[in-house]
Amino acid sequence: MKTVLVIGSTGSVGKAALTGLSEHKVITANRSGESADHAVDITSETSLKALFDTIGKVDAVVNTVGFCEYATFHEMTDQQWRATIDSKLIGQMNVVRVGTEYVTDGGSFTLISGILSVKPIPYAIADATTSGAIETFAKCVAFEMPRGLRINVINPTVLAESWDVYGEMMPGFQPVPSTLVGKAFQRSVDGFISGQVLTVDA
Amino acid sequence: MKTVLVIGSTGSVGKAALTGLSEHKVITANRSGESADHAVDITSETSLKALFDTIGKVDAVVNTVGFCEYATFHEMTDQQWRATIDSKLIGQMNVVRVGTEYVTDGGSFTLISGILSVKPIPYAIADATTSGAIETFAKCVAFEMPRGLRINVINPTVLAESWDVYGEMMPGFQPVPSTLVGKAFQRSVDGFISGQVLTVDA
Repeated sequence: MKTVLVIGSTGSVGKAALTGLSEHKVITANRSGESADHAVDITSETSLKALFDTIGKVDAVVNTVGFCEYATFHEMTDQQWRATIDSKLIGQMNVVRVGTEYVTDGGSFTLISGILSVKPIPYAIADATTSGAIETFAKCVAFEMPRGLRINVINPTVLAESWDVYGEMMPGFQPVPSTLVGKAFQRSVDGFISGQVLTVDA
Repeated sequence: MKTVLVIGSTGSVGKAALTGLSEHKVITANRSGESADHAVDITSETSLKALFDTIGKVDAVVNTVGFCEYATFHEMTDQQWRATIDSKLIGQMNVVRVGTEYVTDGGSFTLISGILSVKPIPYAIADATTSGAIETFAKCVAFEMPRGLRINVINPTVLAESWDVYGEMMPGFQPVPSTLVGKAFQRSVDGFISGQVLTVDA
């Protein structure tokens, strides 16, 4: 049994991750702290440091938070780009940067990207661009992680549980059950792989 | 013969691009304006707007500017990340965002990434991450470009002409001549392809 911190535990992908981590001791965190053990803002290194100082060492960190703005490229403002980059790219890198010293030898980070980098749809250019960035980040930074720490990214398609919300924007996409996405998180946390993008698509 | 704006014309990749554009009318720009027709800062939309207002319509825009900071992930500061993202990611997107209305129907944008996203080396995590981001950006934004505009990214390995500077950092890399990289720019500017990453490696 490992101790696993799950950031974004009350989001749809966070809930999917939890389905794959039922054999572990899970510590949950989200933005508000409601329905979770702790509150954390991944865009703030100070907030992340405070969280890790509170919970201490963990064996794995799972992050499922990556805020994105949606608009056409033409209409997307600089502020919208920066909000997306600050959360989904820099925020996720903050989790790794701050978290590294709190993860036990051989432990792991699991981050999140998304299928729209591979299957583009209208309005999703910032989501796609930051997904591409975080996937390349994980593939490359894996080689410089200390003490055998591992890092992977889960790239899920739309969840069956989210289809009512996103389905209309995603014609021709086949949703997958949360439990299948949970298995990808389990493979990352319980496996020995690193620098991998685990795509869950149908 | 097309009118082609080359931003970063005095850099090593800019010079490589020029070797492939000799049959066109080329307008050059760089940061200082020295040894170039115009000065421009791609991190500033105002600077880019002023440049395009001065030169008017062009058939193609080639950008070879993408400033990167180099450090280990552990030592890389937030400021270093932001300087890299502001130039190589947001700066290049600025070129497209501002330039779109100045490029003639069926014209093109050609941006730059780099081989270190595919062949990681120490200290290059920011270079690699932003290369991955701009490649995904181009692949996805291609579908929403108006008036038949095209967009591609050139991903070159180290240039033979730059080997004296970078060779020691890149053991086992095979440099390629600038003229070969120039041909990739020519394929993007003179071809009909869009949403492509043109890798020039050996």
